[in-house]
Amino acid sequence: MKTLTVELGERSYPIYIGKGLFTQDLLRKHIKSKQALIVTNETIAPLYLEQTQAMLTGIEHQTVILPDGEQYKNLETLNLIYDALLTYKMDRSVTLIALGGGVIGDMTGFAAASYQRGVNFIQIPTTLLSQVDSSVGGKTGVNHVLGKNMIGAFHQPQCVLADTDTLNTLEDNQLMAGIAEVIKYGLLGDMPFFEWLEKNIDKLIQRDPEALAYAIERSCQDKADIVAEDEKESGKRALLNLGHTFGHAIETATGYGEWLHGEAVAVGMLMAADLSLRIGNITEKELDRIVAITKKSNLPTTPPQEMTAEQFIDLMMRDKKALGGIIRLVLLQSLGNAIISSDYSREALDQTLESFLA
Amino acid sequence: MKTLTVELGERSYPIYIGKGLFTQDLLRKHIKSKQALIVTNETIAPLYLEQTQAMLTGIEHQTVILPDGEQYKNLETLNLIYDALLTYKMDRSVTLIALGGGVIGDMTGFAAASYQRGVNFIQIPTTLLSQVDSSVGGKTGVNHVLGKNMIGAFHQPQCVLADTDTLNTLEDNQLMAGIAEVIKYGLLGDMPFFEWLEKNIDKLIQRDPEALAYAIERSCQDKADIVAEDEKESGKRALLNLGHTFGHAIETATGYGEWLHGEAVAVGMLMAADLSLRIGNITEKELDRIVAITKKSNLPTTPPQEMTAEQFIDLMMRDKKALGGIIRLVLLQSLGNAIISSDYSREALDQTLESFLA
Repeated sequence: MKTLTVELGERSYPIYIGKGLFTQDLLRKHIKSKQALIVTNETIAPLYLEQTQAMLTGIEHQTVILPDGEQYKNLETLNLIYDALLTYKMDRSVTLIALGGGVIGDMTGFAAASYQRGVNFIQIPTTLLSQVDSSVGGKTGVNHVLGKNMIGAFHQPQCVLADTDTLNTLEDNQLMAGIAEVIKYGLLGDMPFFEWLEKNIDKLIQRDPEALAYAIERSCQDKADIVAEDEKESGKRALLNLGHTFGHAIETATGYGEWLHGEAVAVGMLMAADLSLRIGNITEKELDRIVAITKKSNLPTTPPQEMTAEQFIDLMMRDKKALGGIIRLVLLQSLGNAIISSDYSREALDQTLESFLA
Repeated sequence: MKTLTVELGERSYPIYIGKGLFTQDLLRKHIKSKQALIVTNETIAPLYLEQTQAMLTGIEHQTVILPDGEQYKNLETLNLIYDALLTYKMDRSVTLIALGGGVIGDMTGFAAASYQRGVNFIQIPTTLLSQVDSSVGGKTGVNHVLGKNMIGAFHQPQCVLADTDTLNTLEDNQLMAGIAEVIKYGLLGDMPFFEWLEKNIDKLIQRDPEALAYAIERSCQDKADIVAEDEKESGKRALLNLGHTFGHAIETATGYGEWLHGEAVAVGMLMAADLSLRIGNITEKELDRIVAITKKSNLPTTPPQEMTAEQFIDLMMRDKKALGGIIRLVLLQSLGNAIISSDYSREALDQTLESFLA
């Protein structure tokens, strides 16, 4: 087992990464009272609920099982968590335990941020994507029909338990969606990791446990370093949104649940890279390397062809980074080095959109 | 005009109190960007919306008008604010302006706390209750069918503008409900103010502008002092809940909207005082003084007679101060001095409930 720490002063917390963590007594020391509510979904419950409950000896715990899917990441489903908390008369000292992927983690985290104006929570991410991304950094929230993650809060967990064994039950497309976010860390600021990924992508696809554990550790460390520097996203943290402005537009346009988040981000990163090439920041060869690793990961490379350029622009204007009508994008300054920028011409953006929608 | 400051380090903010504030240029310096959304309700809009809009010269602003009443303080109505923010493509630099009573203030504050994980907001309270209570201190939130204010966040406004002229359009029962909270400040920790209130209650009822302005200032100052000491309610701030544990039980049992919050708190304070007498903290004579000022203010003195003792206990167990199955109550240690305590016998509590439900 490896333990990383997200350094945030009094809000610091550990991330435990490794095999067989469910059989270890890791949770209880992070639960301050004797009450806990496990929040999971109908896919994950049959697989890991019993093991999670077994870790809670001596703690009064209840469970709420939500429907599975990004289309349920909304205020209505969130309310089911509040219903459970109040029905079971959970008080302000309760600890929520998020058992599942990013949707469960984000919703449980926001329920914890807002129940009685804030209670503790723990993340047990069971997908590659949530292990490397959504469980680290304290962003919580739900979607609104008019925009993704538009309602939420910053709320840090007490700890994160990333058991790599859970990846064995993950469907292929879910694994690949996670790999998209792993590639992101290389692209945005860790060129040696990008090069390692180019060499080891086959191992990851074949679920080699050591390769996966290394990719998770490295991704979490990269993210933890950025979050420690800029918890509330006033600067550098926005770089973690590489591919996300284009990607969120795809997810919103198709209705949540149609595309996996990681799939949309994969296409979004290619679009950001394409725009970066058009403004002269990277070379054609470098773009080809990004396309190559995306294709090798069996990730999509084009947005839904029924989308229009106007639709992209309209949805991207609603991005949380947009300010005063200007779309700020995370672009590549060079391969392995991202910047947040509005320093591109509208013409270049239009060309990128056209070339992907042709 | 009087300006008080709530001292909270970098989250400090001013409260402007006085007549004719709508005609002064007080808001614009607190709005950092050029975007604002006014949130108000159908009762207040015809009265003060135009005056509020007139204060926003040079700022791109929109308005959302909600239905009026505590029964609308829920996630569903909250979502109408998010709808407006997204429909008008308001970005992270937007300032929300809460124009109305406590319900509007609490909901708008929580929308501001959670939209895009946090934006600025300004309070323009138009009821006595919201001027002396809910607009000071940063508690925001909505109700859940199973408990009042169960979903929310701490989020401080940029400023509060309390125009005493707005009290002229307030209905009598609304004014009295506000006076209940004013009396609370005297009872919980400001005996000289309680004595001033005993002498001046008739003036307040007759809406004497000077008496009202003094009562608002003194109440806001008392509350600001407590909030400055304990922003997140880890200790002393809980004293502000005098009468609220009993009162919330009444509001929840009757369905939000039936009883005004201040009316329920008035009865709750009498119940807390009755229990304080039973455990020997105050004298019969002192209780009589509290009953007398409550009656003079035309406030109710008994809970709905269809309620049962079991129902009170059940609802009070869900209170945010309850911990490990024990109901912690704000009681009087002496007249003008409250404490938070679980140091009372269940028998004494039962006797209080029985005597009020007889």
